[in-house]
This record gives sequence, structure tokens and C-alpha cells, in this order.
Amino acid sequence: MGDITEQLADIVGSHNLLEGEAIPDDYWHDEELTHPPQQPAYVAKPATAEEVAQLLKVATEQHIPVTARGSGTGLSGAAIPRADGLVISFERMNAVLEVDTTNQVAVVQPGVTLLELDAATASANLRYMVQPGELSSSIGGNVGTNAGGMRAVKYGIARNNVLGLQAVLPTGEIIRTGGKIAKVSTGYDLTQLIVGSEGTLALATEVIVKLHPRLGHSATVLAPFADFDQVMEAVPQVIASGLGPYILEYIDNVTMAALVHTQNLELGVADQIRDSCQAYLVVGLENRTADRLDEDVERTGELVAELGALDAYVLEGGSARKLIEARENAFWTLKAIGADDLIDTVVPRGAMPKYLAAVRGLAAAVGGGAVGCGHAGDGNVHLAIFCPDPDTRKKLLTDIFALAMELGGAISGEHGLGRAKAPYWRELEDPVKVDLLRRIKQSFDPAGILNPDVVFAAKV
Amino acid sequence: MGDITEQLADIVGSHNLLEGEAIPDDYWHDEELTHPPQQPAYVAKPATAEEVAQLLKVATEQHIPVTARGSGTGLSGAAIPRADGLVISFERMNAVLEVDTTNQVAVVQPGVTLLELDAATASANLRYMVQPGELSSSIGGNVGTNAGGMRAVKYGIARNNVLGLQAVLPTGEIIRTGGKIAKVSTGYDLTQLIVGSEGTLALATEVIVKLHPRLGHSATVLAPFADFDQVMEAVPQVIASGLGPYILEYIDNVTMAALVHTQNLELGVADQIRDSCQAYLVVGLENRTADRLDEDVERTGELVAELGALDAYVLEGGSARKLIEARENAFWTLKAIGADDLIDTVVPRGAMPKYLAAVRGLAAAVGGGAVGCGHAGDGNVHLAIFCPDPDTRKKLLTDIFALAMELGGAISGEHGLGRAKAPYWRELEDPVKVDLLRRIKQSFDPAGILNPDVVFAAKV
Repeated sequence: MGDITEQLADIVGSHNLLEGEAIPDDYWHDEELTHPPQQPAYVAKPATAEEVAQLLKVATEQHIPVTARGSGTGLSGAAIPRADGLVISFERMNAVLEVDTTNQVAVVQPGVTLLELDAATASANLRYMVQPGELSSSIGGNVGTNAGGMRAVKYGIARNNVLGLQAVLPTGEIIRTGGKIAKVSTGYDLTQLIVGSEGTLALATEVIVKLHPRLGHSATVLAPFADFDQVMEAVPQVIASGLGPYILEYIDNVTMAALVHTQNLELGVADQIRDSCQAYLVVGLENRTADRLDEDVERTGELVAELGALDAYVLEGGSARKLIEARENAFWTLKAIGADDLIDTVVPRGAMPKYLAAVRGLAAAVGGGAVGCGHAGDGNVHLAIFCPDPDTRKKLLTDIFALAMELGGAISGEHGLGRAKAPYWRELEDPVKVDLLRRIKQSFDPAGILNPDVVFAAKV
Repeated sequence: MGDITEQLADIVGSHNLLEGEAIPDDYWHDEELTHPPQQPAYVAKPATAEEVAQLLKVATEQHIPVTARGSGTGLSGAAIPRADGLVISFERMNAVLEVDTTNQVAVVQPGVTLLELDAATASANLRYMVQPGELSSSIGGNVGTNAGGMRAVKYGIARNNVLGLQAVLPTGEIIRTGGKIAKVSTGYDLTQLIVGSEGTLALATEVIVKLHPRLGHSATVLAPFADFDQVMEAVPQVIASGLGPYILEYIDNVTMAALVHTQNLELGVADQIRDSCQAYLVVGLENRTADRLDEDVERTGELVAELGALDAYVLEGGSARKLIEARENAFWTLKAIGADDLIDTVVPRGAMPKYLAAVRGLAAAVGGGAVGCGHAGDGNVHLAIFCPDPDTRKKLLTDIFALAMELGGAISGEHGLGRAKAPYWRELEDPVKVDLLRRIKQSFDPAGILNPDVVFAAKV
């Protein structure tokens, strides 16, 4: 047993430390599609912030690369470890510490999953509204990637719903940022800096999240459109209407066909409408009274008709839930039908028609495909890329990302750069900003131990 | 004419550079109450980001302290210059560059005032919802302080409404952060780091702000309570109701008396209710339909009655507007009646009763007073401090701030630390965090030229 093994075991207990061949392959990867899994040197399962602090102190002293792991559901490879590295798995730090109804916040450990938090807040009729597709994802992962999901169009992304952190610096100090407060103007906002930093600046050991009241009544309107651009052009109109949808998604016809087929959806869309439809708009509405919801559903139906929808279907309880779940699981469906990569570029919502037309053209030009769905209200498009040859795909993705940036967008809206997308960012981003981010990274992590191949990866 | 004068004049033109005695005293101060005004060495008025970049490059080379200035309405002294310093005044960079209705954003220069932006967005029926009391404040100042205001309870603070920046680093590089997009997970969020940094990291030269639809119907409910704690305890109940108020303020009886007297308010509150009232709750409601608004007003009236209000007054157009304006101008009223300092601590909303009772006790114990009003929905209390002796006041404020921090709050919710409150922060904050912030500062500003006495002030 090496010296490092002994030091790590002293911190978490030998039964909470895995080493070498004893590490199950679950710890080798996340859900990113292209990067090979990697067995790390160690997996440690701390139970407290103090243990995390001691682990990081050792890692800084011994120059051991550290990768934090929540549920491992990330899509960009930020949880893929290094061969010589230590995985800090938060699976034992999985308690909902407090549901504070007065301040409408929950205080949770990073290993808590969204499903667990949802269950813990239900009796108070409150909810953490960040709901990325995968509800087995952890709050720690939400913080790392700045998770989004379908409800972001109304409730915002993780950044808007994480109010404070207890976090451990790579040098082993434990700090607290923010709090059970919605506003603060007292020094730089470390909470906001750590959120979305993909485990490269500090590791969250406690997270204070905002909760919202669960409104009692909701409905889903599904509107097929003959023309792809019409869907995109409808989006700003729905936003401007003041109806305040909590879901505003588009699903292209290829993706909808795959969802309907693999998940046995019954949407009641007539055959001839389905056949002439290029894309669907999904509008989720909610209200605290049934009457207002009914009015809003009716108004939404009129509005999408004015905007050119072929029809409008109000999905009732079961079928609405199945469609939303199918949309949440679209990643698995697209993976199952053979997608070679998955991206989630973001562009200004008004640029979506132009962007998506251009992306389809770029993919077609290399004999590939780009199909998907997305958070239309946010301009966040989730595309499955079909292009088996890695070199061609790399060139295609570079073009797709460059175009998003030219249009004022970014490589990722909510998945993060991880290991997989970071090389594109390094190639396409303003080098002044890359250097500035690197200096910020150094101000947290002088030894460079935290996820060293993530964000600042050296090459494609 | 010195060498530096010549360099600065070459950049902005000699008619846009003021020096020494020629600098009007408007440039010597902001609205902070305690710090003496200071004549700077230079005032430069750039017209473009490129000019700002050149000014900062010279300042870094020559080690000249730089203070950015918008409208000078700040309350913490972040716009008070140094004697040897350069003020960069954004008064000429005051154009609304674009009101983009599709993406519901505006692109504005930092010198634009909130009134000007309000006028520019009115015809599109959109609005930038951050409305700190002073509508002559500039967007650049909003970015610097992470401004809040009454509507933050529904629409969030500047941080939540600033989507992107063009900003100049102190070393003279121009960068762009964020964009016309509501979500991004692509590297660290520089927008969020610069927002609230009080001109110490980078200077914003263009700001992309989120706009929201103006809802057509609004009303204000005024509810007097006999007991101060009842008001505070009512706040979470109003939030939990799902009524979604866009204003949720409290005003204590002393402050209300001063507002009524100095601003000739006619609120229709009966004498005997006024005399037995310790504090008022102000609930602003809005909706896109008049019917729904009426229902919500009625429900609010019932709710505050259940929560112990002595009565509930629905203020109509003119008197509602006057009350809201009076509340926005409370600072001037409290200044006029002789307040020695003004603070805006923030605590978890549930801690407000305990906090305010303790603060009143602390002030009384030194023969002083602490009265005010605040953004009750946000736990952000604006207190006028009556305590003429500076040493006693310093001790009192230290105690008041320390208590807010103990309760999980912070020194400032929206005014910032500036020069005036920074020394308290340096004394009370975790030194690990102060050091980390200082390293972040250095990663932006290696020569330390940007507002060197702000945030990191050396002594009380």
C-alpha cells in the first residue's frame, strides 16, 4: 500500500477508498458519447466537507489530478477521470439537510439527486425548478455544469437557482458563499463563479437552492407546423404574449418519430398532419387556478393557429406527462438510433431559424445529419450529430460551433465543455478570454489539480 | 501640460479631458453620506470602447488609479475618485444601441440612464425591470453595484437581467462576455463576475440587458400592522401564496410619517389605525388582464387580513404611484431628516423580525436610531442610522453588519461596499475569501489600477 493510498485511506477510511483494479467501471466515465472510459488511480468517498478538504490538501501537495463525481450523468465528459487521478465521489454526501419553507430554500449535500430533492420538497408544496432531462443527476453536477432543462424558460437555470455554497478550495480551505438570500452586493460573487466551472475551481460540499411553489394546474399544448422556420418564428411571439409558459420546446419531425416509436407515445396527431409536419412546438402552461389555466390554454391554441400551426392538441395528464418524459429522455432515444455525438449549442432565440438551417446544410454537405429538439425559448438546441468518421465530425462540429459563436451564441447552453467540447472552445474562443480564465483558475487552484483536462484541455 | 495629460488628451480629445482645478465638484463624489468629496487629477470622457481601452492601457503603464463614473448616484462611495486618479466618465457613451424585440433584449452603452432606457423600450411594450430608487442611475452603475430595487422580488436583480457585456480589461484588451442568450455553460461566467465588482475588475462599455413584457394592469395594496414582527412574518406567506407580487416592501411607521409629511401623500389611512400601526406592508400586483388583477387584489386583501393587518387599502393610479415614488425617494427623505448613514444589509427573509429587533436594540443602546424600509421579499433592509459620533457609529455599524452575517446575510444587498462599507467587510469577512477575491482581482488587474480603495480598502 503506497504512501498516497495510506494518506487517502486515513481520511475517508479504507472501506471508502477504492484503488486500481478494484475500481468498478461505473467510475470510469459519464454519459458523453465519444471519449473512451478511463480507470482512475483512486476513488474516495468522503462523508464530510472536512474530509473533502483533507483529500484536496493531499492532492495539492502530491499533485494528484482530482475529478469530482456526482451521478455521472454529464454529457460532456467532465466526470471522466485521469489515469493517475483521484475521483472524489459524492455518493455518501447525499442528505437533504433542510427544507426551509420560510425562506423557500433547501440546503442539500452535493450527492442528492433531483428525484430525491423533489420527494423531499413535495410535502411543503415547493420544488427546485431546475429539471435537466436526467432526474437521477445530482445537485453537485447541477452546480458544476450550470444545468438547465425545460423549465428554464420560466424559472431560469442552475445559476439562477443556486443561492449559496459551502465549497472546498483545492488548497483545502472550506468557504461559504452566498446564503439563503436572493441578492447580495458584497464582494465578487463566488457562487456564480463556481457554478458552471465543471469542477475546475472548487468542490461544492453544500448547496443552498431556491424553491418555488408548485402550482396546482398544468397543461401541455402540442402544435405541429408544416414549416420548420415557422416554429422558430413562433417562439418569440409566445414569449411576448405574456402567457408565461414554463415549457417552450421544439421537436423536429425525425426526433418526434423516434420518440413516438421507441416510447409508444399516443399524441392523437392525425396521419396527414404528421406527414406534412416539419417540427412541433410544445407549450407547457401552469397556473394556481384551473380557470386561469383553461383560459391560457385556449389563448395559446388561438395564438399558435395565428402563427401558422397545422393544429393544436391539448394533451391531458397521462399523455402530456409521457411526452414531457419522452422529451427528457430524447438523449437516450437519439443515442439508441445511433447518434455519433450530441451537442447543445445556444444562439439568440431569434437566430434559431437561420442557425438550424445552416447546421442542417453543413451536416448534409458531409453526408451526415443533425436532428433534434431543444429549449426553443432559450435558443438552446440539442442536436444529435450523425457523422461516423471522427475527423469529418471534428471538422463539422468546429463549423457548427463557430457559426453559433458568430451568431452571438456559445458552444454549450447547459451541458458544459467537459473534456469533449473544451478543445473546440480553446480553438474558437478569444485567446484573451482563455488566458483570463486560466488566470482565474490559477487564483483558485495554484497546483492545477482540479479536473486539469476539463475546460483548459490542451488539444482536440 | 504634463506627459500624462498629453497622452490622455490624445485619446479623448483635449475638450473631453478635464484636469485639476478645472474639474467641477460633481465629479468629486457620489451620494454616499459619510466620505468627504475628493477632487481627482483627471476626468476623461471617452466616446468608444477603443478610447476606454487606450485610457486603461495608459493608466496601467503609468500606475494611475482609475474610477469609473456613471450618473454618480451610488450610495457606497464606489465613484469617489483618488486625488492622484483618473475618473472615466461614461456621460458621452449614452446611446441605446438596439431594442431587439425578437430576443427581448436591449443593447446599451453604460452611460444610458434607467429613465432613458425606459423611454426607449416603451413603444415595444418591453421594460428593463431593474429599478433601483434612483432612475437617473446609469446602466453602467447598475452593472457595477449589481443594482436591485423594488421589482427584484419578481424580476430579480441586475445580475439576473444583465446577459452580456463588452468590457475593457485594465490592461487594455476589449472582451465580449455572454450575449443575447439566457443560458450559457461554456467556461467561467465573466459577466457574472464583473456584475457587482464595483469597477474593480473591468469596465463595461456595452451592456446587453433582458427586457420583459409590460403587463397592462397593476395595483398596490397597503396594509398597516400593529406589530412590526407581524409584517415580517406576513412576507413569506405572501410569497408562498403564489400571487407573485412584483413589489413586496415594508415601511416602518417613522419612515412612513416622514414620507407622508415631506411628499404630501394621501393614503386614506384612518388616524386611529395610523396611530396604532408599527409598520406597513406594500404589495404591488400586476397582470395582463384586469379581471385577474382584481381577483388577485381581493385575494391579497383577504390574505393580509388573515395575517393580522389592521386594514388593507387598495391604492388607485395616482396615489399608488405617489407612494411607490415616495418609497423610491426614501433615501432623500431620510437624508433630509438628518440620517448619519444609510445601510442596506440583507438577511434571510425569515430572519428579518429577529434582525430588525436586534438592530433597533443596538442603536438604542448607544442613544441612536435605526429606521427605514426595505425590500421585504428579499430580506434587504434599508436603514437610516442616526448616530452622530463617528466612532460610536463605526462600532454600531460593525455590530449591525456582524449580526447580519451571523444570521446568514451580508453587509449589502444592492448598494455595494464601495469605499465606505469595504473596511467593515475586510474586518468581518473570512480572510480566506478576502485573499481569494484579491487573487481574482489580480488576475484581471495586475497593476491594481481599478478603484484601488474600493472593496479592498486597507483600513476603516
